[in-house]
Amino acid sequence: MKETLNIIKVGGGVVEDAASLASLLDQFAAMKGRKVLVHGGGRLATSMAAKLGIESRMVGGRRITDEKMLEVVTMVYGGLVNKNIVAGLQAKGLKAIGLTGADGDIIRSHRRPLKCVKMDDGTEQMVDFGFVGDVDRVDAQLLSQLIEGGIVPVVAPLTHDGEGHVLNTNADTIAASVACALAEYYDVTLTFCFEKAGVLRDANDEGSVIPAINEEEFKRLTDEGIIAGGMIPKLENAFQAIHQGVRQVVITHSDNISGSRGTRIS
Amino acid sequence: MKETLNIIKVGGGVVEDAASLASLLDQFAAMKGRKVLVHGGGRLATSMAAKLGIESRMVGGRRITDEKMLEVVTMVYGGLVNKNIVAGLQAKGLKAIGLTGADGDIIRSHRRPLKCVKMDDGTEQMVDFGFVGDVDRVDAQLLSQLIEGGIVPVVAPLTHDGEGHVLNTNADTIAASVACALAEYYDVTLTFCFEKAGVLRDANDEGSVIPAINEEEFKRLTDEGIIAGGMIPKLENAFQAIHQGVRQVVITHSDNISGSRGTRIS
Repeated sequence: MKETLNIIKVGGGVVEDAASLASLLDQFAAMKGRKVLVHGGGRLATSMAAKLGIESRMVGGRRITDEKMLEVVTMVYGGLVNKNIVAGLQAKGLKAIGLTGADGDIIRSHRRPLKCVKMDDGTEQMVDFGFVGDVDRVDAQLLSQLIEGGIVPVVAPLTHDGEGHVLNTNADTIAASVACALAEYYDVTLTFCFEKAGVLRDANDEGSVIPAINEEEFKRLTDEGIIAGGMIPKLENAFQAIHQGVRQVVITHSDNISGSRGTRIS
Repeated sequence: MKETLNIIKVGGGVVEDAASLASLLDQFAAMKGRKVLVHGGGRLATSMAAKLGIESRMVGGRRITDEKMLEVVTMVYGGLVNKNIVAGLQAKGLKAIGLTGADGDIIRSHRRPLKCVKMDDGTEQMVDFGFVGDVDRVDAQLLSQLIEGGIVPVVAPLTHDGEGHVLNTNADTIAASVACALAEYYDVTLTFCFEKAGVLRDANDEGSVIPAINEEEFKRLTDEGIIAGGMIPKLENAFQAIHQGVRQVVITHSDNISGSRGTRIS
């Protein structure tokens, strides 16, 4: 029987708020067993970019990453957010090591080609996302060696192309890709934590959590416009993970990383 | 007999210049055997701080690190510089992993207390360096495990206090501390690479390299004002390393990391 592994993904909205982050790290440190933390940091990147006079452009919930924005995300994700989380976990006695996909070549990607994207107004457009990496492979062997050595990997949403370039990769995609790769070694539960209670039927009502969603319902709710924006790629990542051997995916509030509430994906 | 280990420290002046950095990484990748790269990034931190409207203050060649500057150095050293070097080395086939002192708890430090510093005008002053860490210990065991696993550690000049705080630590000090700790496991050569040919008798004459310096000469040359500024802590670090079992320390130009030229410290 495989050992259990918890992969917790925490989003930019939690990471930018000191109190939410502290609570998240407390809960994460208290979790027993093998674990991996994957973090975002988009909002901090947006605010740092603004301070540097760089405009953030998003299409379909994904960031356009030009050369200057790549510098910002490399600094914010790989440095500021990652190292503060690592230092915070060390203070709680966890042997955390921060990793981007470039470190140890753990996540190799290729630069995304021009992509046809459905815009908010319903039209379709070819979009150049810039220095954005689509994941090719995850080195689950190295990650599992680290985990078996008592290390807690803290993974930033950056990958590399093997030709010397860091690339920006969506943190949900990183979490799902890492979960899929590690499913070969472990019985994996992947939990997406953010600032809402789960997938909501009504974005303004935290009580309207949908307790469980399968792929058919996802399609229907997307067609009806109930699921929209950044929630779409998050759920696509969740279903991809389930298809590729991850035992359970949960989308829940960051104050509930055990996943006892929230939305269960099957 | 201990295996040989080369620790190369590369300074901010080299790191900020794309061509110098590329040449340095080529040379480093070509070096045979076990190796560690320690990098600075001070000039990039200064320029990023300026873009963010944050003034850089230096005393005796060391940076004053207030809260905002700590954010900048965490981003620039731990993110921008470290991850670009790691991605660059991966492209050359090296299994590089970027580490700050917080990662894996490899370098623990304490916040520097108020310190009496000799100013440029000869007066002495009590200085609060802010979020600057003085090294307490290096986990040479974890570092050597990584090295024996074929990993090339790329170390950023950041440490942590074990209480959740990242601290800024001079890169020369990091290099010397890591060299001293690893001297228990390896026959260590520590090479400080920068944009000059070595320790110069005349700062304006690259041909005036002092081929070798011992501690007595260092004191004399410092008293005479020939060695000054940032070169003083660099040499103090070098002598500390020799005292603590490092076989050889070389200060040389970044286009010569094999250390065949430059200044030898004994």
